[in-house]
Amino acid sequence: ELVAVIRAIFQQKQDMQGLKVLVTAGGTRERIDPVRYLTNDSSGKMGYALAEAAAQRGAHVTLVSGNTSLNPPPNVKVISVESALQMYDKVMELLPEQDAVIKAAAVADYRPAVSADKKIKKTKDHMTIELVRNPDILAEIGTRKTSKQVIVGFAAETNDVETNAMDKLRRKNADLIVANDVSKEGAGFGVDTNIVSFIRPDQPPRRLPQMRKRDVAEAILDEIVTIRTSKSGMDRS
Amino acid sequence: ELVAVIRAIFQQKQDMQGLKVLVTAGGTRERIDPVRYLTNDSSGKMGYALAEAAAQRGAHVTLVSGNTSLNPPPNVKVISVESALQMYDKVMELLPEQDAVIKAAAVADYRPAVSADKKIKKTKDHMTIELVRNPDILAEIGTRKTSKQVIVGFAAETNDVETNAMDKLRRKNADLIVANDVSKEGAGFGVDTNIVSFIRPDQPPRRLPQMRKRDVAEAILDEIVTIRTSKSGMDRS
Repeated sequence: ELVAVIRAIFQQKQDMQGLKVLVTAGGTRERIDPVRYLTNDSSGKMGYALAEAAAQRGAHVTLVSGNTSLNPPPNVKVISVESALQMYDKVMELLPEQDAVIKAAAVADYRPAVSADKKIKKTKDHMTIELVRNPDILAEIGTRKTSKQVIVGFAAETNDVETNAMDKLRRKNADLIVANDVSKEGAGFGVDTNIVSFIRPDQPPRRLPQMRKRDVAEAILDEIVTIRTSKSGMDRS
Repeated sequence: ELVAVIRAIFQQKQDMQGLKVLVTAGGTRERIDPVRYLTNDSSGKMGYALAEAAAQRGAHVTLVSGNTSLNPPPNVKVISVESALQMYDKVMELLPEQDAVIKAAAVADYRPAVSADKKIKKTKDHMTIELVRNPDILAEIGTRKTSKQVIVGFAAETNDVETNAMDKLRRKNADLIVANDVSKEGAGFGVDTNIVSFIRPDQPPRRLPQMRKRDVAEAILDEIVTIRTSKSGMDRS
């Protein structure tokens, strides 16, 4: 806390001053009944680090947070949601006013077709859960985005990481995909470090070494500032 | 921590001195693939409170813990597991040497029939997950228990609480079921208090007021000591 304050005071970079940045973080919970749900391994650490770093660089940060046990970062507006549908609604509501959107949340792709009001009794040896697709938040942002908005997504993969990430960049109409191989030690869910590649349109992948998530966050923000500059440049030409 | 130490020193009750107590706590994670899983709302607080209190009353406590963000209680041997199958194996291994077993874990009733090695791609609008029943840890303990072992289970219900708990007591051959209505405010998952009823064979339900989980833990241990005494009494007659 004190370290964060001192860092904020002495931090030279205020290169996001006045920018509105929306960060999504954490996992979503998709309820089967009042006590059971489908979820994933997201700790929320990457998104929280991004929100905190962006606020320190002068941005107005809104953090739409799914499930996590992390404390809210200082100077960040936190909005808590549980399910993918709730997260979708909140992001779409806030999207028009943003300069950059970083979708770090691990949103569940599917939710149970029905969510029971009462705890389901275990009466059978087998059970089948019917799942339906959740709306694709990143793809919808990509459809709605203006030419000046910078959209960043993540690709957590266990195989063919850069190929899958490049494919994702195109399908979602994103400006940057941060790809990581979650099967590697020191990368991905729950740990404090990450090993990522930056995937941008018409550029070779930029591979970063293993770094603390806080430093990965700073590198992502550097990239966002660069992309914004190049977008402004295109406008002027 | 300091409070716990002082409490331990001044605590008069050492009525579990030398008893071997096994506590299970937390939820289990049933993997669909490397990043997705089925789970439930258990925080592990009730089980951890029981383990800590039993250790302070002189018991040798082993805590078989599923997922939780809690710190290990002092003077307790903690064994971490992820899935219901892992918890089952560990509990059956340790069962023969125990004087009492408290099954506070929220073990998933079902697991995916197949668990994928790689992250499943979301290619379809609908998906079906086939689930199979996990082994019933409490029922298996009830089958294997000796006449002197005290077996305690929990029944987290959203409706017909005492009827369901009484039924569970019979089916599992348990000595005590701690029943709670998780739909009530101040009871159940995640919160620090609980509102429970004690269900024992051939006795009317004993309804306790809303209490801190630590105090509920002490009341459960009192009940275990009483049940042990009555079991010894029967032996002598």
